[in-house]
Amino acid sequence: MEELIEKIKSSQSLSQEAEDYLYSISTNKTFAKGEILIRQGQRVKNIYFVTDGCLRSYCYDKNGKEHTLQFAIKKWWISDYIAIHSDESATLTVECLKESKVIEFKAKDLELMLTLFPDFERFQRKILERHVVSLNKRILNQLQLTASERYDLFVEQYPAIEQYTHNYHIASYLGVTQESLSRIRVEKVKH
Amino acid sequence: MEELIEKIKSSQSLSQEAEDYLYSISTNKTFAKGEILIRQGQRVKNIYFVTDGCLRSYCYDKNGKEHTLQFAIKKWWISDYIAIHSDESATLTVECLKESKVIEFKAKDLELMLTLFPDFERFQRKILERHVVSLNKRILNQLQLTASERYDLFVEQYPAIEQYTHNYHIASYLGVTQESLSRIRVEKVKH
Repeated sequence: MEELIEKIKSSQSLSQEAEDYLYSISTNKTFAKGEILIRQGQRVKNIYFVTDGCLRSYCYDKNGKEHTLQFAIKKWWISDYIAIHSDESATLTVECLKESKVIEFKAKDLELMLTLFPDFERFQRKILERHVVSLNKRILNQLQLTASERYDLFVEQYPAIEQYTHNYHIASYLGVTQESLSRIRVEKVKH
Repeated sequence: MEELIEKIKSSQSLSQEAEDYLYSISTNKTFAKGEILIRQGQRVKNIYFVTDGCLRSYCYDKNGKEHTLQFAIKKWWISDYIAIHSDESATLTVECLKESKVIEFKAKDLELMLTLFPDFERFQRKILERHVVSLNKRILNQLQLTASERYDLFVEQYPAIEQYTHNYHIASYLGVTQESLSRIRVEKVKH
């Protein structure tokens, strides 16, 4: 929990009352590799802040193929925001790629906290702004970069992630086939 | 300006003081077809709320090819959020696709308003949440849908936009060649 408090305080003030409230609505959990936190089609109630490990959100298309929306490592948030903000059932599945420690929050408790504590609302607004920036960049990269250039950016953004991800996790994030990703990796090793 | 006030009030309360402040920092402008509001490489100071018309944000890649990030029609916001929130020069160009009426705000005035009026911060946070949802959906659609399915969704989202957009505007939004888009349209007409 200290990681989250520290993260908030690094950008702005947080009253003791807000800090106590945040503690009171948080639950520390540890999930084993392969465990599912959110399952496509079910109701989504929780939002997770990762303190250690790595999680992945993805969906299955109509042919059963997986498409990865996000990886979440230490100090990242993960949930199915489409479901939470649209009040729909989950479009995404969130799974643990290695044993992970997370702080679990009920989305409705966090929402209440936003209305009670303006400092926390500001923090949340700034997180959302950065999230919009990163999603905009991802869309532009998907449109304009080659698969090899997107792979370079991915490795830069998640330096250690290849230790505990399968080939298809990364391929399905980059939007390429596993064969293309293998070719790209072979080329990188050669040069 | 009434459209924006109405849009805010449809989701929550807004004090008279906040409404007056919003008026005081707004400038109504009309731009002709082809006019550039933000130019890639330059500093970005403004955020626009569209009251009539249609604008487009796009970037040029290293080969001079255009890639469209967003179309903005009535009641949508547009700017280069990557530049504004990262304090960088513009990655994007924003142009008018037809004569458009917009309300222009200086980003720093809006930022100040967010800190002065908690109601407005809440409104902004909710806009950002919906924006994250729509960007998440776009990324998932890009990963899992065929170009033809993405075109169907595009036409559903922007029903009248084809009257004043060129083929390459839409192709560069969908991430397909103009030839592919033409083939998709021919197929749709046949069926």
